[in-house]
Amino acid sequence: MLYPDDSFTLHTDLYQINMIYTYWQTGIDSEQVVFEAYFRHMPFGNGYVIFAGLAHIIDYLDDLKFSQSDIAYLRSLNLYDDAFLTYLQNWRLTATLRAPHEGEVMFDHEPLLQIEGPLIDAQLLETALLNIINFQTLIATKASRIATAAKGDPLLEFGTRRAQEFDAALWGTRAAYIGGFNATSNVRAGKLFNLPVSGTHAHSLVQAYQNDYAAFKAYAQTHHDVVFLVDTFDTLKSGIPAAIKVAQEFGEQINFQGIRIDSGDMVSLSKAIRQLLDNAGFSKAKIYASNDLDEYVITDLKVRGAKIDVWGVGTKLITAFDQPALGAVYKMVRLADKNTIKLSNDTDKISTPGKKQIWRTVLGDTLSFSTEIMPGDPILHDIFRSGHQVYTSPTINDIQAYAKQALSQLADNYKILDQPKPYPVVLSQQLLDAKSAAINSIRQSIKEN
Amino acid sequence: MLYPDDSFTLHTDLYQINMIYTYWQTGIDSEQVVFEAYFRHMPFGNGYVIFAGLAHIIDYLDDLKFSQSDIAYLRSLNLYDDAFLTYLQNWRLTATLRAPHEGEVMFDHEPLLQIEGPLIDAQLLETALLNIINFQTLIATKASRIATAAKGDPLLEFGTRRAQEFDAALWGTRAAYIGGFNATSNVRAGKLFNLPVSGTHAHSLVQAYQNDYAAFKAYAQTHHDVVFLVDTFDTLKSGIPAAIKVAQEFGEQINFQGIRIDSGDMVSLSKAIRQLLDNAGFSKAKIYASNDLDEYVITDLKVRGAKIDVWGVGTKLITAFDQPALGAVYKMVRLADKNTIKLSNDTDKISTPGKKQIWRTVLGDTLSFSTEIMPGDPILHDIFRSGHQVYTSPTINDIQAYAKQALSQLADNYKILDQPKPYPVVLSQQLLDAKSAAINSIRQSIKEN
Repeated sequence: MLYPDDSFTLHTDLYQINMIYTYWQTGIDSEQVVFEAYFRHMPFGNGYVIFAGLAHIIDYLDDLKFSQSDIAYLRSLNLYDDAFLTYLQNWRLTATLRAPHEGEVMFDHEPLLQIEGPLIDAQLLETALLNIINFQTLIATKASRIATAAKGDPLLEFGTRRAQEFDAALWGTRAAYIGGFNATSNVRAGKLFNLPVSGTHAHSLVQAYQNDYAAFKAYAQTHHDVVFLVDTFDTLKSGIPAAIKVAQEFGEQINFQGIRIDSGDMVSLSKAIRQLLDNAGFSKAKIYASNDLDEYVITDLKVRGAKIDVWGVGTKLITAFDQPALGAVYKMVRLADKNTIKLSNDTDKISTPGKKQIWRTVLGDTLSFSTEIMPGDPILHDIFRSGHQVYTSPTINDIQAYAKQALSQLADNYKILDQPKPYPVVLSQQLLDAKSAAINSIRQSIKEN
Repeated sequence: MLYPDDSFTLHTDLYQINMIYTYWQTGIDSEQVVFEAYFRHMPFGNGYVIFAGLAHIIDYLDDLKFSQSDIAYLRSLNLYDDAFLTYLQNWRLTATLRAPHEGEVMFDHEPLLQIEGPLIDAQLLETALLNIINFQTLIATKASRIATAAKGDPLLEFGTRRAQEFDAALWGTRAAYIGGFNATSNVRAGKLFNLPVSGTHAHSLVQAYQNDYAAFKAYAQTHHDVVFLVDTFDTLKSGIPAAIKVAQEFGEQINFQGIRIDSGDMVSLSKAIRQLLDNAGFSKAKIYASNDLDEYVITDLKVRGAKIDVWGVGTKLITAFDQPALGAVYKMVRLADKNTIKLSNDTDKISTPGKKQIWRTVLGDTLSFSTEIMPGDPILHDIFRSGHQVYTSPTINDIQAYAKQALSQLADNYKILDQPKPYPVVLSQQLLDAKSAAINSIRQSIKEN
């Protein structure tokens, strides 16, 4: 793009800058505040979410500042005076950021992020932080649902071409891995995140050699591991016979991992293919399937006896097709030494005041003031402290393993895909009392005006 | 991220690289081919799409090459030999790319992109090209539908926090502008794309000053243009009275543009607010609304008489919530001097062979071989010729104006939101004949095997 010093500091809503201008002009920009991000409704009707996005947050916050071209752009808007622009130019992150470990199992109304620091920091970061966790948590959760449906079968993420632009493909496939996928087709994601990459060939290979046999033979001559896509022209009449012929001709020279189908009635096709492969002595060759799969289609195919071993999932996962936004919000819960609240006529939209901690026991979670000590393990950890990263990111495999372990500790009735039991999350008595008091106090002050 | 020489060349599916390896080993990597991208089903049941994404494609293709770390990563996969990696390292784009103008009105089964060049180029770029146009065309189209519903009212894009990661927010809001939106809240998008930016304040401003009046007053002291968000505590009892009081106190010192509501029953609230503002002498102050708006909600609010003047649209637009993927595919239509086809048992999935042009007349579109001359205006233009950009991108305002003009030439019955008339797109007789011949020829050759 046009600016050599392009930064992500302006990846925020204009109203954040406008509010910061007001805070700065009236001298409250450095007021110490606490903001928390949380969502109100479980996505997909799921019983939990898998928290993801922390690696991108750390990357985004690393050396965050306004570049010269950022300042020049803000000046061009004619909304702010020069002293403010100088103040922005000198701004550096000094806030503390807390979050769960990536891969943590989380629930509605629990803080996914907590920012504590000057008002300017909390306001400036809001948009980007929500943008990151809303998407990545959604995809990790969708992936986890698909993994539940697949019951241990390998899962491949194939969605880049249908993702909502480059970053969604990149960070989405990482989130899918955290949620339980085994590999991605996206090579750059493999490179940047150390994910296993997967993929063999498309229909165009068959078109390039003009028939299945010639294409599979060319592929087998040039690769050791082969999975043949058999539905370019006719799966049972052309694709499968050609795959078997090439596998027989090449024998031990190749690792004939199996075949992939991308269209047609997957139940009858996969049964017929299984029979043909077995009859030809390739009982170890796997049947890969792709084509608009999700947890519902996979469950249905399994119930109907499809002989599919490996699932390639694209569109429905990478866009979270049936609910493409999580909807986490970000609310001020403390200002200086006072707990704050946002009211609403919809009681579910009333925020819970106060800087919190989440405590997890085998019986459920308790939200408390961070100053309370409750039974269980605390879920929020310091990621940045006074602007400096203090958290060491685990490897991606450790994050995936952490998510798997966290899920294994969750009782099965919270993990049912359809109508799971709601997981118990309660407020401490102190939080409940503070919330009631805050609601009453504000309603009283409105009445008096 | 970790690599200073990070590139987007690996933003592709692994199978593309695996196919290219086979092509190169068997000596057909430089075979001249034509691939075309098109989609099969109109998104949202709309009667047209607005083509968008070309600016990102041009940015992506500019100086595209494998970086050293890309090559090192591919080497680490142990799938390819050194000579191939050297070949990739030396690869540069030499293909020709054709596309409609950004903002063009397009229809299902029409080529949105056409790549002509060596097989390696066509294969390597597929994933990224689809990733870009699938998303941006979807969002421009969704925006256009919302603009239809808004009937000329100003439209503000507010979706960054709910977008599917950074790029979706950035390119999505540009696409929304092309589709008819008037401004974005995303400051970086404003900077990079020269879009108008918009936004005043959030609920947190009111929390920071602890009541509506103090917050609005602080904002008015520090900004000339003001829109007060009035639903932090209680819209009619606190927010609106405070807004009116501040507007009266500041008088000509501020440009009181209006108020924004983000919750509650928009019909009754907006009517009551209109009355209060008018009674106070602020009949020119506008009522802004946000809160999960889309073309259906806006239509409904208008039908029910809501007094809303300006619409802020977020989640439902930026994620294309009701259909978050377009599903464009990319098929080889010509190989050397031969037209190629992809068959399927589903007749709609059979591709149409041959390098094409689209011709538009007042009666509809005709797809022909590119060698035919038909009545009407050709829609596909050279963007890159033999690897070099030959197209001069219009300004964003010219693109928006182009889309508006193109839409104005489309008859109204194709623009109805629900159940529009299908726009006529026909194949030339030569294309029809070639398609039938190709299907018969392949079915014959399968039978003979």
